[in-house]
Amino acid sequence: MTASTALRALRGRLLWFVDDPEIAGEAAHRYVEDGLLVIRNGLVEAAGAARDLLPALPADAEIVDHRPHLIMPGFIDAHIHIPQTQVIASYGAQLLEWLNKYTFVEEQKLSRQGHAEKLSRFFLDELVANGTTTAAVYCSVHPQSAEAFFTESQRRNTRMIAGKVMMDRNAPDALTDTAESGYRDSKALIARWHGNGRQLYAITPRFAITSTPEQLTAAGRLAGEHPDCHVQTHIDENRAEIALARELYPEAADYADIYRRYGVLGPKSLMGHCIHMTANEWRAFAETGAVAVFCPTSNLFLGSGLFDWGEARASGVRVAVATDIGGGTSYSMLRTMAEAYKVLQLQGQTLGAFAALHAITRGNAVALSLDHLIGTFEPGREADVVVLDTGATRAMAHRLETARDLAEELFVLVTLGDERNVAATYVMGKRAAQPSTPPLRA
Amino acid sequence: MTASTALRALRGRLLWFVDDPEIAGEAAHRYVEDGLLVIRNGLVEAAGAARDLLPALPADAEIVDHRPHLIMPGFIDAHIHIPQTQVIASYGAQLLEWLNKYTFVEEQKLSRQGHAEKLSRFFLDELVANGTTTAAVYCSVHPQSAEAFFTESQRRNTRMIAGKVMMDRNAPDALTDTAESGYRDSKALIARWHGNGRQLYAITPRFAITSTPEQLTAAGRLAGEHPDCHVQTHIDENRAEIALARELYPEAADYADIYRRYGVLGPKSLMGHCIHMTANEWRAFAETGAVAVFCPTSNLFLGSGLFDWGEARASGVRVAVATDIGGGTSYSMLRTMAEAYKVLQLQGQTLGAFAALHAITRGNAVALSLDHLIGTFEPGREADVVVLDTGATRAMAHRLETARDLAEELFVLVTLGDERNVAATYVMGKRAAQPSTPPLRA
Repeated sequence: MTASTALRALRGRLLWFVDDPEIAGEAAHRYVEDGLLVIRNGLVEAAGAARDLLPALPADAEIVDHRPHLIMPGFIDAHIHIPQTQVIASYGAQLLEWLNKYTFVEEQKLSRQGHAEKLSRFFLDELVANGTTTAAVYCSVHPQSAEAFFTESQRRNTRMIAGKVMMDRNAPDALTDTAESGYRDSKALIARWHGNGRQLYAITPRFAITSTPEQLTAAGRLAGEHPDCHVQTHIDENRAEIALARELYPEAADYADIYRRYGVLGPKSLMGHCIHMTANEWRAFAETGAVAVFCPTSNLFLGSGLFDWGEARASGVRVAVATDIGGGTSYSMLRTMAEAYKVLQLQGQTLGAFAALHAITRGNAVALSLDHLIGTFEPGREADVVVLDTGATRAMAHRLETARDLAEELFVLVTLGDERNVAATYVMGKRAAQPSTPPLRA
Repeated sequence: MTASTALRALRGRLLWFVDDPEIAGEAAHRYVEDGLLVIRNGLVEAAGAARDLLPALPADAEIVDHRPHLIMPGFIDAHIHIPQTQVIASYGAQLLEWLNKYTFVEEQKLSRQGHAEKLSRFFLDELVANGTTTAAVYCSVHPQSAEAFFTESQRRNTRMIAGKVMMDRNAPDALTDTAESGYRDSKALIARWHGNGRQLYAITPRFAITSTPEQLTAAGRLAGEHPDCHVQTHIDENRAEIALARELYPEAADYADIYRRYGVLGPKSLMGHCIHMTANEWRAFAETGAVAVFCPTSNLFLGSGLFDWGEARASGVRVAVATDIGGGTSYSMLRTMAEAYKVLQLQGQTLGAFAALHAITRGNAVALSLDHLIGTFEPGREADVVVLDTGATRAMAHRLETARDLAEELFVLVTLGDERNVAATYVMGKRAAQPSTPPLRA
């Protein structure tokens, strides 16, 4: 690699976070109006004022001028299902019916040769188009679905967390493993993919309803053997789900206690939804360091309920945010935060633009225990970057004519934005190809 | 006009409604896979199968081939504020604070020479881009704002309902009229614009809080003198608003009773929001024929609450749907219905794709008492048309690969759709220019 390809600088309005705006206020973010992000061998070398950094660049450094766009760390999506890209927008059901009627039907197709590969390509194209450079991904029960996904992610060099789903009951036969095979297949995938390049493994028991106690035991054993792996599952999304989980695990004090008993509630556990949480459950999360994953478009679309971010914060629990495709209705983390704002407004809570943009960058990196690698522009971090045009639509450009400051501009971006605002995405300093929109038809 | 310009036919998948799908089920809609919409002098002459209608067309008829797109009646938006196109996405407040902090600031600009004209152009461009061909529009308090809007709408030949806002208290001085001037100015605008071409007037007291009893008396007098005009106002949006309205009108039994006493609650009254309605208020609506206007994106964005469509239906009250820009967050009636679905899901109610598409076409036409003119493709109706590409985005095209029937395709359109799905809009049979997106910036 020559100096010029190893060294690249992006010029534009830099924005990143070094702390949580809910705690540190204005001191939490860094904003450089005419900024330069200097990237060497895929890592952030420096982020600062162009006038300071430009003179020090070698003559042959490649400088990409993105002015007047915003340059931010790539977005992070903490919960998304790759087998559900063709389930999104399925009509009329709430959680359990929706799983049986739509999701379990589509997930079976992942056993077909080539289907997981096709979905992985679409999925990673779509994420990049939305400026999302890291996601915590549920594959299907089939080990080859995780194999296909990691292979495609490796090819693109994206930092992804993924795991094959473990399910050994309450699902169609074609979608179940066993406590033993789920353990063995997960173990093999961990050996092959966890820490292989930028790929990370998440032990993925779907939820208590689709795992026997034997399987949760196996999942807990995996988590104990691989404390550096994530665990991802679902909890307290829907009242019928909670009732059934409690019925299946009558000895547990509550839903969280099911997971805690089996050793799958820990600091790397990403717990999807957390809507109908009791005080005891919040306490269990705080004690174990488990992360609550808020999926606003999904919670509204499935009518699951309203996530109480204020209570999570008061309980000292880390919160991550996520699209939850295909229960969710948008791949865009901007759209996700627009809906998060609405969920909070309905509860008399609020969410400022800085807090929202923190959540989908550094906030999710902290929640995923990956803030030493991604989510900010601190030197040494991996240079995953999204370049944002805040005025990409007519309605936004018109609205921004009256914006008085950065906070107002950013709130417009969060409230009205989507993938149209993504002007470019970089993965480890390399510009990712933007997939084309479908061919226009007259 | 020659025969060829007077006669135009659009070919594609025709979809329109002749009844309410919630009542008539499958019999409520008409769908013609290879259809032709024949338009003569701006009116629907026939809608049916291309194989039946093509042979009867004169040789020089202009045929526009939109296959495989859907061709539907233009969308109707029952509540939208033109002075708020630069208020949309304003942060952190609920209704009353939001009005004072953002809306009343922007509305004052409408007194400036040329500003109402500029907003009207943007606004009508944006509506057309979203496939919306009729809207019930709040202008500002300034009569010239309505004058500017009607002038621009007349130029485009769009069927619009609009009125200057009446406000004589609880607003900045620069935004108030008086009971007398509000009456006189409205009366003059009615004389000039109501029934002038396609323009219709709506008597527009903003809401009880910003009108004195004297002004509501004047508004009721106008409504009595012009029973063919609409009335539009707000009710039961927010608990603090309700408390204040009740305090200002202590003699009224409830909020609806305020309007009823002053004669502004009738069959052409479009009552925005109706979230926190009592049984008595629903009864008053049913007795007077007043219309409840559901504004889902606004109700969520301002944290106002959840509209109870099931209760409205059970009460025999007509429901219209609307964006309520700038409390609302999208100009798209598709996006509006996606959020309506979510609002209903949170209450254990549902909304099918046919019901959603009915709501924004024939449903709103019925609610606005305009179904003899617009909202369907029955012969003689005005040919306002939207052409829809259901696979306009990557995510939608990918999802539609597995759609098994029309209902599923339409639900994807409603759930994931926005202005990108609008391939063309016709106003009285004439194709409207699609405004360009902002110039792309590197």
